[in-house]
Amino acid sequence: MHIFDRVRQIALINTTGSILSWDQETYLPSGSADYRAEQLSYLAAHAHDLSTSPDFLKSLETAAAADDGLDPTLSANLRELRRESDRATRIPTDLVARESTAQSAAHHAWIAARKASDFSIFAPHLQNLLDFAIEKADLWGFSSEPYDALLEGYERGTSTAAIATLFDSLLESLAPLSARAVAKSAALKPELPPGPYPQAAQQDFNALIAAEIGFNFHAGRIDTTTHPFCTTLGPRDIRLTTRYEEADFTSSLFGVMHEAGHGMYEQGLPAADFGLPSGSAVSLGIHESQSRLWENQVGRSPAFWEKFYPIAQRHFHQLTGFPLEKFLQYIHRAQLSPIRVEADEATYDLHIILRFQLERMLLNREISVSQVPSTWNDLFQKSFGFPPINDAQGCLQDIHWSMGGIGYFPTYTLGNINAAQLFRAANQAPEIAAASANANYAPLLQWLNQNIHRHGGTLDPTELVKKATGAAPTTADYLSHLESRYS
Amino acid sequence: MHIFDRVRQIALINTTGSILSWDQETYLPSGSADYRAEQLSYLAAHAHDLSTSPDFLKSLETAAAADDGLDPTLSANLRELRRESDRATRIPTDLVARESTAQSAAHHAWIAARKASDFSIFAPHLQNLLDFAIEKADLWGFSSEPYDALLEGYERGTSTAAIATLFDSLLESLAPLSARAVAKSAALKPELPPGPYPQAAQQDFNALIAAEIGFNFHAGRIDTTTHPFCTTLGPRDIRLTTRYEEADFTSSLFGVMHEAGHGMYEQGLPAADFGLPSGSAVSLGIHESQSRLWENQVGRSPAFWEKFYPIAQRHFHQLTGFPLEKFLQYIHRAQLSPIRVEADEATYDLHIILRFQLERMLLNREISVSQVPSTWNDLFQKSFGFPPINDAQGCLQDIHWSMGGIGYFPTYTLGNINAAQLFRAANQAPEIAAASANANYAPLLQWLNQNIHRHGGTLDPTELVKKATGAAPTTADYLSHLESRYS
Repeated sequence: MHIFDRVRQIALINTTGSILSWDQETYLPSGSADYRAEQLSYLAAHAHDLSTSPDFLKSLETAAAADDGLDPTLSANLRELRRESDRATRIPTDLVARESTAQSAAHHAWIAARKASDFSIFAPHLQNLLDFAIEKADLWGFSSEPYDALLEGYERGTSTAAIATLFDSLLESLAPLSARAVAKSAALKPELPPGPYPQAAQQDFNALIAAEIGFNFHAGRIDTTTHPFCTTLGPRDIRLTTRYEEADFTSSLFGVMHEAGHGMYEQGLPAADFGLPSGSAVSLGIHESQSRLWENQVGRSPAFWEKFYPIAQRHFHQLTGFPLEKFLQYIHRAQLSPIRVEADEATYDLHIILRFQLERMLLNREISVSQVPSTWNDLFQKSFGFPPINDAQGCLQDIHWSMGGIGYFPTYTLGNINAAQLFRAANQAPEIAAASANANYAPLLQWLNQNIHRHGGTLDPTELVKKATGAAPTTADYLSHLESRYS
Repeated sequence: MHIFDRVRQIALINTTGSILSWDQETYLPSGSADYRAEQLSYLAAHAHDLSTSPDFLKSLETAAAADDGLDPTLSANLRELRRESDRATRIPTDLVARESTAQSAAHHAWIAARKASDFSIFAPHLQNLLDFAIEKADLWGFSSEPYDALLEGYERGTSTAAIATLFDSLLESLAPLSARAVAKSAALKPELPPGPYPQAAQQDFNALIAAEIGFNFHAGRIDTTTHPFCTTLGPRDIRLTTRYEEADFTSSLFGVMHEAGHGMYEQGLPAADFGLPSGSAVSLGIHESQSRLWENQVGRSPAFWEKFYPIAQRHFHQLTGFPLEKFLQYIHRAQLSPIRVEADEATYDLHIILRFQLERMLLNREISVSQVPSTWNDLFQKSFGFPPINDAQGCLQDIHWSMGGIGYFPTYTLGNINAAQLFRAANQAPEIAAASANANYAPLLQWLNQNIHRHGGTLDPTELVKKATGAAPTTADYLSHLESRYS
């Protein structure tokens, strides 16, 4: 069997696992968590077995030996498959199965721990997952520190040291900027008219907006979960989820625009290459650039609301008579919240930098798992000037670690940076700028399709941004966006 | 690996396929049907590969050789696994994959054909599936006719000739009985007060009734599909589906009671043996006895409605002032409908007997696929006295053939027969009869758990009924139930 057929077969298994995970979050009866974990663990181990089998490796080497370099996509696919394969073969299948089982248990423990705001419930599971992360980092190998090896899985071609430098420089401007933004908001006290904004009306409005910005509902859908996500179950089956607050319709709306940004990236990948690197997203930092672009650069722009505020007013009677200007103040408010997912543009990255620092200390064994709550609280106090009231609002707030996602957080801030740079570059074209100014986003999406999506994973993230914008990723456009947002 | 561990592993794969199928019917985006078919075909072939591998067969023979006969459940499991294995190994894996792909295509063609009422769209697919059925029957082998080999997969231990004899004798009493019932109904003209009965109220009422008769929502759920079904996605994950008619709430209600009957059987199987024969339903005829028992013996009984009619009246304002007696006349109405799933107790089996006769002719090559519409219409005319108005209301009405379910239909009538016999036997116990008379069904469910469910697939269907009721299956209780229902 040709290596590409093998890779497509493994994609069938992996997307099957994604269907099971999606169902677990949306519709699984409460009594069936254990059996679902067994099903997922079986699939993860089976896919890993196939992708590390001697037959697989032989097919890959045969194809690589025959590569004459004339087809750059073919060469990129073989290069990336070898890179992935090199990582995969270093991990024994039984570790994959054991980690999948541990993740399922950790996820349930995390839910209970967060509910009770009791870190001790989650601590042994976090220790387990941290041990798996360190074991894998050791197996993969790294030049400076274990974090490098984990980061490579989410954002290939970057390093922990480079991220640390980038974050330090960002923080220098961000700390005063966010303080000013928060002070300004505190003076204005922006508020939305009181709810309830009925869930059914939110669903209608969100679906309308998602379709309007280009999410294809013949190849996707929106469901309800506690923790919003976007998942790919097939080349034409991209599912978003959101949650609803009846007090504030913008919460689910921006959630949907964010996830739709992820979804439109997946829908824009070359479907014929599904499962191959050339048909897959390149990195989480690029993925997050798409979600952040649609959520913040588009969704929080005045031009967007010039067009859609009247439609929102038809969906939500409370907005009748509430001026657009006040509404914009509300969606541009800045405040120091303990919760990352509630954070605004001015303060979001402070949350990410904290997590990056803490994960790095854990992986370098500078702190133990039992020190996570106190370290978190100290770092938070330093950035935000007050401590979280409890662990549920502190170190237990995020789902990521409970799913084994250690080393994942920095990609959020990379996404913010890339989003600003891409949005600015796209709008250099006068016809895109003109269309965006009229809240017509078809040309913008086409630009993203052309400059980001269609490349799949054939270029490294940094190269991809450089090719699309003319410059390697820098914080300049992002900081200038934040300056103008909060000036 | 012990054979039982292998079997459990295969159950993980098969239930994963069931999750994908469930999702296909409930939530799959329209553009993703082809990829879903690929995923399902991969899983079907993979499970078949594992269950026919030399390792599997060796484990099975090793365990069988070590069986000292001291544990009857163990012996039954090994006996049934060998029986299944013998059937499975006769079918090459590539036939399984090809058939799975053909079924997906046939299913979509059937939907289009039924919509257009154009049999020619479905005909080549039916030919394909019939060829697969005949090929498999030849591979499995049979004593008299190909139908025997297919039937064995749904209802082990019976024969086509035995079914034909049973159906002939049933028809002898049923033909005059149904004619009388229809005539009586035509004179009474029972009607439900006009709708709409809102879907949300139907959902509430159905869930209340399903829980009341014993369906466990911690280990199951109810969703909406075009074609109602019950599927098992894990030992504690049994999902029912139904569809809603706003003009008649009893349609979804009896649908839910029917599927909940299937679901409670699955929920009552020994969970620790999930995937093994001892933890699996024994046959479709027994399965259908459970659904029919709750739908008809319980759900259409006057005692049930004495208790639940006032609750229905609180859900549906139209029932206020509408007497219980009239309502009972409505749910006991009999009429000659062309559509099986709309048929009442008096006429349902006429539909089944027609399908059995027609399938048998197809498999014996007495008619060709192109003759299906005319043969259907002739048989229908003979039984019902009028022809279907088109193929959508005739030979295209059922989903079964499009999913490869040839030889399946007779189990519906076996279910009706068994339901009556089991219900009568259970109510021989005075405490069950007394509880049922007060619409308290916990003792009845307990009796079914004890006498049917807990045995899983360790006894042949006929033995099981004999052990539970003291007699082999006969039409006596069923006919006496119908006589009393329609007298």
